Amino acid sequence: MDLNSDLGEAYGAWSAGDDLALLDVVTSANVACGFHAGDPATMERTVVAAAERGVAIGAQVSYPDLVGFGRRAMDVAPADLTADVLYQLGALEAFARVAGTRVRYLKPHGALYNRTVVDEVQAAAVARAVRLYDSSLPVLTLPGSALARAAAAAGVPVVAEGFADRAYTAAGRLVPRTEPGAVLTDETEVVARAVRMVLGGSVDAYGGGVVELRIASLCVHGDTPGAASLARAVRDGLAAAGIGLQAFA
Amino acid sequence: MDLNSDLGEAYGAWSAGDDLALLDVVTSANVACGFHAGDPATMERTVVAAAERGVAIGAQVSYPDLVGFGRRAMDVAPADLTADVLYQLGALEAFARVAGTRVRYLKPHGALYNRTVVDEVQAAAVARAVRLYDSSLPVLTLPGSALARAAAAAGVPVVAEGFADRAYTAAGRLVPRTEPGAVLTDETEVVARAVRMVLGGSVDAYGGGVVELRIASLCVHGDTPGAASLARAVRDGLAAAGIGLQAFA
Amino acid sequence: MDLNSDLGEAYGAWSAGDDLALLDVVTSANVACGFHAGDPATMERTVVAAAERGVAIGAQVSYPDLVGFGRRAMDVAPADLTADVLYQLGALEAFARVAGTRVRYLKPHGALYNRTVVDEVQAAAVARAVRLYDSSLPVLTLPGSALARAAAAAGVPVVAEGFADRAYTAAGRLVPRTEPGAVLTDETEVVARAVRMVLGGSVDAYGGGVVELRIASLCVHGDTPGAASLARAVRDGLAAAGIGLQAFA
Amino acid sequence: MDLNSDLGEAYGAWSAGDDLALLDVVTSANVACGFHAGDPATMERTVVAAAERGVAIGAQVSYPDLVGFGRRAMDVAPADLTADVLYQLGALEAFARVAGTRVRYLKPHGALYNRTVVDEVQAAAVARAVRLYDSSLPVLTLPGSALARAAAAAGVPVVAEGFADRAYTAAGRLVPRTEPGAVLTDETEVVARAVRMVLGGSVDAYGGGVVELRIASLCVHGDTPGAASLARAVRDGLAAAGIGLQAFA
Repeated sequence: MDLNSDLGEAYGAWSAGDDLALLDVVTSANVACGFHAGDPATMERTVVAAAERGVAIGAQVSYPDLVGFGRRAMDVAPADLTADVLYQLGALEAFARVAGTRVRYLKPHGALYNRTVVDEVQAAAVARAVRLYDSSLPVLTLPGSALARAAAAAGVPVVAEGFADRAYTAAGRLVPRTEPGAVLTDETEVVARAVRMVLGGSVDAYGGGVVELRIASLCVHGDTPGAASLARAVRDGLAAAGIGLQAFA
Repeated sequence: MDLNSDLGEAYGAWSAGDDLALLDVVTSANVACGFHAGDPATMERTVVAAAERGVAIGAQVSYPDLVGFGRRAMDVAPADLTADVLYQLGALEAFARVAGTRVRYLKPHGALYNRTVVDEVQAAAVARAVRLYDSSLPVLTLPGSALARAAAAAGVPVVAEGFADRAYTAAGRLVPRTEPGAVLTDETEVVARAVRMVLGGSVDAYGGGVVELRIASLCVHGDTPGAASLARAVRDGLAAAGIGLQAFA
Repeated sequence: MDLNSDLGEAYGAWSAGDDLALLDVVTSANVACGFHAGDPATMERTVVAAAERGVAIGAQVSYPDLVGFGRRAMDVAPADLTADVLYQLGALEAFARVAGTRVRYLKPHGALYNRTVVDEVQAAAVARAVRLYDSSLPVLTLPGSALARAAAAAGVPVVAEGFADRAYTAAGRLVPRTEPGAVLTDETEVVARAVRMVLGGSVDAYGGGVVELRIASLCVHGDTPGAASLARAVRDGLAAAGIGLQAFA
Repeated sequence: MDLNSDLGEAYGAWSAGDDLALLDVVTSANVACGFHAGDPATMERTVVAAAERGVAIGAQVSYPDLVGFGRRAMDVAPADLTADVLYQLGALEAFARVAGTRVRYLKPHGALYNRTVVDEVQAAAVARAVRLYDSSLPVLTLPGSALARAAAAAGVPVVAEGFADRAYTAAGRLVPRTEPGAVLTDETEVVARAVRMVLGGSVDAYGGGVVELRIASLCVHGDTPGAASLARAVRDGLAAAGIGLQAFA
């Protein structure tokens, strides 16, 4: 099993998350590429730190929306979205190259993540960017998403992920962050959900019911207080359940 | 001799220059990378058009200053400047890669160009980015500039360029655009200067005197009215003088 | 009848439209406020030129999206949208104040214009900003729009406008710019539509049918080639039909 | 004596400083206006909180440089700088107006602050903006600065300020933040310097010597850990020395 987290989400003088603590926990780092967070110097630092620890580097691509932290859906035209993704992929690749490694996967951020779960057109635009850039580069998304289908149709590998600390709808979507209860913070509960997702292939839905899901990666968040300790608890809980961790890429 | 021009300097809905006409004239395209101009979709279009015509693609890197079009000097810290250059190089490389080619050289834009002619610290920061990224990538700059020295010290190739349509000081620097007479527009004069620079290795200085310079590339501008026809006149003038054109890279 | 146009949509080194020619034609200037176009120096120049000609100054407020020219819908939260509108209103007011006048009305731009025609929540957020800032400031929008209702509910005056050069759906909405035929360019047709809108209170819908509409202002566009001459033709056509022009504000 | 602090320096999802704690200590709030920090929603919140506590609101204007937090000098042309200042002043005024108050003064931020201490041209451009906007609006700057002279020449009031937690050169300038020892954090020392500045009109210079200075406001910083408690210690220390606090504006 892979453990991924959003990293490098500082911007200039503003900090975000305890990246170094998280890099000691996760196996894959979703590095912000400047469109919602991550100025170039932050990207360089994050990539170097990830490479030193053998953590796989992924491009966490976003809509161009610093002030909204990429959390607001935007009607970006498909050709523009493809170009936006290529731009971010390439920018991150430069830092990976300098650090002696390369970008191993792509994961959309925030509103683009949620939109490409359901929007076939934007999903196809993202998948097209990956196919053009390097069709062997996996895309990280929710199982059964529009992006999973678009990537498969484009010949791009798909890696399905689960969220131990986010509430799911009965349809297997994430409950929006703006709703109460969308983000889980109780450590025991989050660890139990993580283990059940990996071993049992299921999670309780918000409001009742069970979601079946097969995942190859588990996402832990880095931008909440106590995020690093929650992530470590998940890692330890998986280990205690006999689940080994390594990057999928 | 190589003929280079700034291209891809549109931004979103705003246009700039007649890129397609210029691409039929020049041998090297200095493509804007998003920091002073050049949104991702414009970069993609520009790179595709250049690649189709066999024009060499260079990264025209800038300070982050859209509203000032990169024409205002900024006291960017060296480590940040190195990261800014890497970011832009990588972003452009993605489009080059998709177009089946690669970035062949780097040229600073506007205020960064002028600053790295005289500022050893910023010049070293730019040269460091190129050395880290690909030390075989040439840097285009004024002969005798701080950047030329910094690149040489970093083991990075230097290509010296001349400006047929810009006034020179007696010290071989460009007269700032804000001064009257800084930009020449008379076609006959510009063509004559171009031929003399290439064959004679010299140009008359603004206010008297002669500047000796050895150049491997000649820059023609693309952002003034009639730029494409002036560029073509330079190309034809060089041809009439028996000077063949091809990209240095 | 009032004649309004989008003005001040340059940005830094990039130009847009023939503002001075348009200012001699229109009675109200929708001045871009920096979020989709209009850097501060452009705003200052535009406001001064409008004030000199006695043209009423309105705030053309937008989503924060320079690269998309404010033409892409964004899911901005209501409180953020209200703050965005206040910020733009105030910024423009500073230039109006320096020019010895003040902001006379507000008109949303591009995607925000279209979204507030149908989205009650975003319409209320815009109306709230105007009510908080100055509840006597009119809002310019399509007749019957969500924004017209929200403004009325907030005690803010509404001025209904028509578009002589845009195709209408049978429901009285504008056909999106991305569709063929959305923008009309035939001068005779545009002038005839303008006169009929003002005198007859109706316009032919795209695809058949007639839209009834009562308007107090007519919008002419400034960002297309020949825009100024088309605007002048509309003005002359209205005059020939005996319709006098003056700002509604 | 007045006590001022930089506030509202968050941006979107990124936080900065403990504004509410500082607002209970200071008498004047230098509110960021969006160019180096302070998105519109943050500005609104900050202005409302300041107004509720009777804290005077000042415009903390900056170069347009989010990624550099306004800490990098830029060669902005005077006319552009004047327009940039007007834009920020007006934007903040909108929030002040909605909160039932108004902008009481202006203070340049970061690199613009330092530049206008020594650069006559940029100082004049800032002073010109204030004169055009409201010539009764005081400008906060170092005693003896270029901005103090430019404001006086423009008929704009000047309020001299001192920094209890920053090292001074013998010439009365601030030691740049990039140098070791530039920012003082020892509470006892900072409080003693504050009291001596106010009562004694002097401060020990970095490297020896004494700087004489007459100030009407004392700046305490808000962006360092423990800033609010240091600010409170300064306030308590001034009170213990019999110095009353109230806004100069």
